[in-house]
Amino acid sequence: MLHESPRAVIAYSDVQRQAGLLDKYREEKVDGIILSPINAHEIVEAIDRCTEERIPVVTVNSDIKGSRRFCFIGQDGYKAGKVAARFMGEFLNGKGRTVVITSDGDEHQSFPFGTREGGFRTVITEAYPQIQMLPSVTTKEDPVIMRREMQRILQEEKDIDGILVTCGCVRAAGEELKASGRRGVRLICYEDYPEILELMREDVVTMTLGSGLKDQGKRSIEVLLDKLIYDKNPYRKHLYSEIHVMVKESL
Amino acid sequence: MLHESPRAVIAYSDVQRQAGLLDKYREEKVDGIILSPINAHEIVEAIDRCTEERIPVVTVNSDIKGSRRFCFIGQDGYKAGKVAARFMGEFLNGKGRTVVITSDGDEHQSFPFGTREGGFRTVITEAYPQIQMLPSVTTKEDPVIMRREMQRILQEEKDIDGILVTCGCVRAAGEELKASGRRGVRLICYEDYPEILELMREDVVTMTLGSGLKDQGKRSIEVLLDKLIYDKNPYRKHLYSEIHVMVKESL
Repeated sequence: MLHESPRAVIAYSDVQRQAGLLDKYREEKVDGIILSPINAHEIVEAIDRCTEERIPVVTVNSDIKGSRRFCFIGQDGYKAGKVAARFMGEFLNGKGRTVVITSDGDEHQSFPFGTREGGFRTVITEAYPQIQMLPSVTTKEDPVIMRREMQRILQEEKDIDGILVTCGCVRAAGEELKASGRRGVRLICYEDYPEILELMREDVVTMTLGSGLKDQGKRSIEVLLDKLIYDKNPYRKHLYSEIHVMVKESL
Repeated sequence: MLHESPRAVIAYSDVQRQAGLLDKYREEKVDGIILSPINAHEIVEAIDRCTEERIPVVTVNSDIKGSRRFCFIGQDGYKAGKVAARFMGEFLNGKGRTVVITSDGDEHQSFPFGTREGGFRTVITEAYPQIQMLPSVTTKEDPVIMRREMQRILQEEKDIDGILVTCGCVRAAGEELKASGRRGVRLICYEDYPEILELMREDVVTMTLGSGLKDQGKRSIEVLLDKLIYDKNPYRKHLYSEIHVMVKESL
């Protein structure tokens, strides 16, 4: 039986706070938890403590390495990186220079972004050997760093043809590209947030790959309720949402 | 109350047979009809006779001009044409030569294909003025004609860069492109039929735009049952399915 109404809590980027909340709700004996986890060992351990006490933790949108979370619902980052690479390769007709802008390499928050980058590199390397990939750039999802790095790239790389942003702060990236006055640089990114759609309407973002956020939310609730009410397990531990490839005409 | 179990009947391309079936089921007083209509005035009239007798006719996948059908569920062909044009324009870097291969111009079966072509032409003309569009080619969805026309195009147009197939017989088109040994010709088409996915895996089809056929079927049943059981009307007369842009990495 479910004890009380669901609650939503925001604890986005503070590891200690997110781990503390998991412990708090575990002690309160909630029925289940849906979590967009920070990729940190403290969170792994807090999830595992919940699991030990039979509180299922469903991860949504971002996943976490090595925990005993019940199920992950979100985009297949590696595949979404491969799809982006196919389009980048075709947009550039198989030659040119690209850069991947990502979050923070191997630190916290990096999970889906790293897999996107991995998929992108794999397909570019295999299918488009004449496309040169510059070293990846990390931004720690900080718009100030994103702006600084975009300015640097656009200044230093006069012949950059394609930019893949695997992480957030796309608005900052797009505004810098627009301000540079450079035309024909393909900017590919993820999610269909309003600011991204706006940049697509302005021909700054060429294409975005939505991850079906509403559907992720719906499915995470369904999976959790199936477990709590019927003790039913999902048919696999990863339930991937669809990759929605969008251009301005899709809007 | 629903009188009996649903039935499925196939009457794909024969106008008289499809009109006759509509009349037959109308006389049998079925509760409702889900139809993929042939775009012919005989079908318009047969649908209107059903509507007069309060038998709702839901059109699915293809629509029909000028009838009093209850609701249409399928792809927004015009939008799907615009989306294809954006990708074609980007793949060709805004210059080159393209051709649209379609069904039969203004004759029967042409409805979704004509709107796709219209959307495609609109965006190419407005956004990519340096892309030259050859006169459209009609195939009447006959694989023999498709093969003959593809052979002719590939022989006569040595510098063709992009081909949009708005209609069926993509397998025939793809096989001819493959047999020609021509590389780098972008072939864009519609639907995610197995033979299309196979051609995409082989790098013959560059991209396809699925129309969510399963979802169309599901929604057509839902709309019809909502009408029959709750007398509830859909919130609009066109319910468009999502446009699924797919490349080989999407599979």
